[in-house]
Amino acid sequence: MKYPTTIQNLIECFEHLPGIGEKTAERLALATLDFDEEVIDIFAKSLKDTKKKIKRCSRCNNLAESELCDVCKDDTRDHEILCVVENPKNIILFEKLGTFHGYYHVIDGLISPLDGINPEDVHIPQLIDRIQKENIKEVILALKPSVEGETTSLYISKLLNNTNVLVSKIAHGVPLGADMDYVDSLTLELALENRKKISNDD
Amino acid sequence: MKYPTTIQNLIECFEHLPGIGEKTAERLALATLDFDEEVIDIFAKSLKDTKKKIKRCSRCNNLAESELCDVCKDDTRDHEILCVVENPKNIILFEKLGTFHGYYHVIDGLISPLDGINPEDVHIPQLIDRIQKENIKEVILALKPSVEGETTSLYISKLLNNTNVLVSKIAHGVPLGADMDYVDSLTLELALENRKKISNDD
Repeated sequence: MKYPTTIQNLIECFEHLPGIGEKTAERLALATLDFDEEVIDIFAKSLKDTKKKIKRCSRCNNLAESELCDVCKDDTRDHEILCVVENPKNIILFEKLGTFHGYYHVIDGLISPLDGINPEDVHIPQLIDRIQKENIKEVILALKPSVEGETTSLYISKLLNNTNVLVSKIAHGVPLGADMDYVDSLTLELALENRKKISNDD
Repeated sequence: MKYPTTIQNLIECFEHLPGIGEKTAERLALATLDFDEEVIDIFAKSLKDTKKKIKRCSRCNNLAESELCDVCKDDTRDHEILCVVENPKNIILFEKLGTFHGYYHVIDGLISPLDGINPEDVHIPQLIDRIQKENIKEVILALKPSVEGETTSLYISKLLNNTNVLVSKIAHGVPLGADMDYVDSLTLELALENRKKISNDD
């Protein structure tokens, strides 16, 4: 004995989402019954539109509805500074601060040899290409303060060792082990201000 | 600076769901980007179908895709026993046990004078009507063991006081204050077995 098929299907869809178990999926699916029809239409349409329209920016790999994302479309920013982030969500965090005026590059993951994730898998060759082509003067690494994040930062800084590019990483104001998504704005702002040049000597 | 409009819309839709805040909505919306297009289509369709097709059973008020719900359509069950539950979710709980073979009646809420919820608001007149019309012999009250649940149980039992209907309520094996949705099957089974007749004397 189960719910009617349509509800059962909807519950299974909600179960596909991260962190949503059987009970929660059931609760969410039943909650949609109380939504206005209008909201349901927008919900269904948004799901399809997001899947269909959202691409990656051809320049920085951010989420975008067109060839370039909103940041890359903005020509008034500082073309010489590039902030390297793990995923598009991190860009939103920095943009909420409003104090960074360069561009971004999303590498989409961190180097993790144990998990078989190599520099090519996280768009590092594209990053290096872009730095050279666009004549970037400063690269700020804003990656997660974990083993993988540090490895990735070090790897990128080594690749840029013999160039004129100034490589820095955001300060360890970001609490160690924390998820970048949950860092508060003030900590992030301090971390951005106190970024330090990576030295390959230590 | 925000996400592209389509994603922003989707995030807002997720925020409409109970218990889903801004951060979680963001995480869920972004997660759908990694879904197969097929899954997205089913998700969008299920949302619309559920809203459109799911009605209330004209007999017991359970969720149904047609005039009658699956339980009421089943003519092999015991027509003399009626189990009164707060919401359709509770029916699924009992059906998972598989030991109850009567029918159900969903009253859709509990009497709560402080919140302005009166007997008419929770379909109690319809319940009494049905008990008389269908010649029900036994009514099992399976409501939440809270002040509102007890009030509702007592109210229903008083209404059936001068009839031949045997009124019982599920035993207090169900932990007090617990949400019916999270009661484990064994506790629920014991509570069903140990149901006791409500006496209006105490």
